[in-house]
Amino acid sequence: MINRLAILAPGLLGASVARAAHDRGVARHITIWARRPEVRVALADQPWCQTVAETPRDAVAEADFIVLAPPVARIGELLEQIAPALREGAIVTDVGSVKSDICRVARQTMEASAGVFVGSHPMAGSAQTGWQHAEPGLFVNRTCFVTPEASASPSAVETVVRFWRDLDSEVVTIDANKHDEIVAHISHLPQIVATNLGTLLGQSPAEWSQLSGNGLKDTTRIAASDATMWIEILQQNRDEILRALNAFEDDLHHFKSSLANRDWTDLRTRLERGKTWRDSLRP
Amino acid sequence: MINRLAILAPGLLGASVARAAHDRGVARHITIWARRPEVRVALADQPWCQTVAETPRDAVAEADFIVLAPPVARIGELLEQIAPALREGAIVTDVGSVKSDICRVARQTMEASAGVFVGSHPMAGSAQTGWQHAEPGLFVNRTCFVTPEASASPSAVETVVRFWRDLDSEVVTIDANKHDEIVAHISHLPQIVATNLGTLLGQSPAEWSQLSGNGLKDTTRIAASDATMWIEILQQNRDEILRALNAFEDDLHHFKSSLANRDWTDLRTRLERGKTWRDSLRP
Repeated sequence: MINRLAILAPGLLGASVARAAHDRGVARHITIWARRPEVRVALADQPWCQTVAETPRDAVAEADFIVLAPPVARIGELLEQIAPALREGAIVTDVGSVKSDICRVARQTMEASAGVFVGSHPMAGSAQTGWQHAEPGLFVNRTCFVTPEASASPSAVETVVRFWRDLDSEVVTIDANKHDEIVAHISHLPQIVATNLGTLLGQSPAEWSQLSGNGLKDTTRIAASDATMWIEILQQNRDEILRALNAFEDDLHHFKSSLANRDWTDLRTRLERGKTWRDSLRP
Repeated sequence: MINRLAILAPGLLGASVARAAHDRGVARHITIWARRPEVRVALADQPWCQTVAETPRDAVAEADFIVLAPPVARIGELLEQIAPALREGAIVTDVGSVKSDICRVARQTMEASAGVFVGSHPMAGSAQTGWQHAEPGLFVNRTCFVTPEASASPSAVETVVRFWRDLDSEVVTIDANKHDEIVAHISHLPQIVATNLGTLLGQSPAEWSQLSGNGLKDTTRIAASDATMWIEILQQNRDEILRALNAFEDDLHHFKSSLANRDWTDLRTRLERGKTWRDSLRP
């Protein structure tokens, strides 16, 4: 059990961590810092928040385990603020969906600090944003990547892994660069494809889209995601996403050429390969 | 109410038409013909099938309203078989998901016949195939396109429209060519995109895909569709699909260029346009 857990800048994810940790008795005491004063006032009334801190440094001063939950682009500056205030052996993690940039920044920032950083990426989310929509079950049976640096102590890594397991996540420990390559394919590429179906259909008469069946709705559901969050992901994982996009463009172009050339044999192979892959996904 | 309804070559869609019509009292008597003898034997035991016919011609001889439900590539040959056997004023429709080819064939085939053809396309389906998986509620609140030729009598069109409305579909009457342009965008393009995400991810290590969240699962759900059905759709709607694919490739390529050039303003506009479109879809 964690004695003092601190959560900084909670949105949907950070507040869900707090609620999940509270419900499961994972931490004795939860301290939260939020950037906006009115959020700090509101958090003081929540049963899953024992202390509201006025500054990031105040929040971490006594903490054993710290979760940084701001938008991915702000994790670096928050790390810089808290690094000098960490107590000996304090473990810091985050919930950012791109990892190699953050881990590189953490390496430099934490060098002179008394704490240790081990990155995390829980693959969980919601169509809603904001701490008010937190769900204590958000991480149940979801993949959570943990991306330790080679220099991280095994016990610190183990503590972070155990934390997410205690929230019922399925933890995968992996190198930060490999993580970014994987999520470029399984998360960022589908988002871009859904967005581009949306922009194309947005140029067609509005009534076309209302005629659609569930296929189009499912295929484009994630196009409704928050644009600001995705700009930051695109910025942080640009190179891996470009590689995945190039590969997708190549495949799609071959498909189109086969259709133009009436190569039904090749098209059947592609349709069957896509089906085989999709049928292999766990439900 | 239809006196005698005939359904030819029922799979999931055709048998769902039979069950829906039976449950709602839309037809007094339902006759079914299936190509395979063992299916004919099994159908004879179904409460929603009053007569099993041995041939397509037998099935339609006394019918007022006929639904052709084979795979889209076989509708033409079935039309040729039944055309000489139709009684005066018999109305024939189908459930094919591409319409201009079928309507062109029907124009020629039905010329000397006593019946009239009015094409239909109910936008309904299931991950399952086969008459055994028929669902009487399959068409409820789903779009059903009706694509009459200019020469079709208004009363025949009205009968087909009323038939689908009686199964609780939302009927849209539209020109066959316009139909094919629309479904190329709202149905066939999403299928191709999902298939190509599947073929690309199928080339990655299998464990990557198992790590995915619901986003990838939703975006690729329709990649699991039947390959044979899709080959036929690609064959019948090749030109419109190529046009839609070209437009999608252009959009995607611009997105990629903006990412390569770090044009975050353009990328934000695209993400927001995609979101605006997706948020505008009825649930």
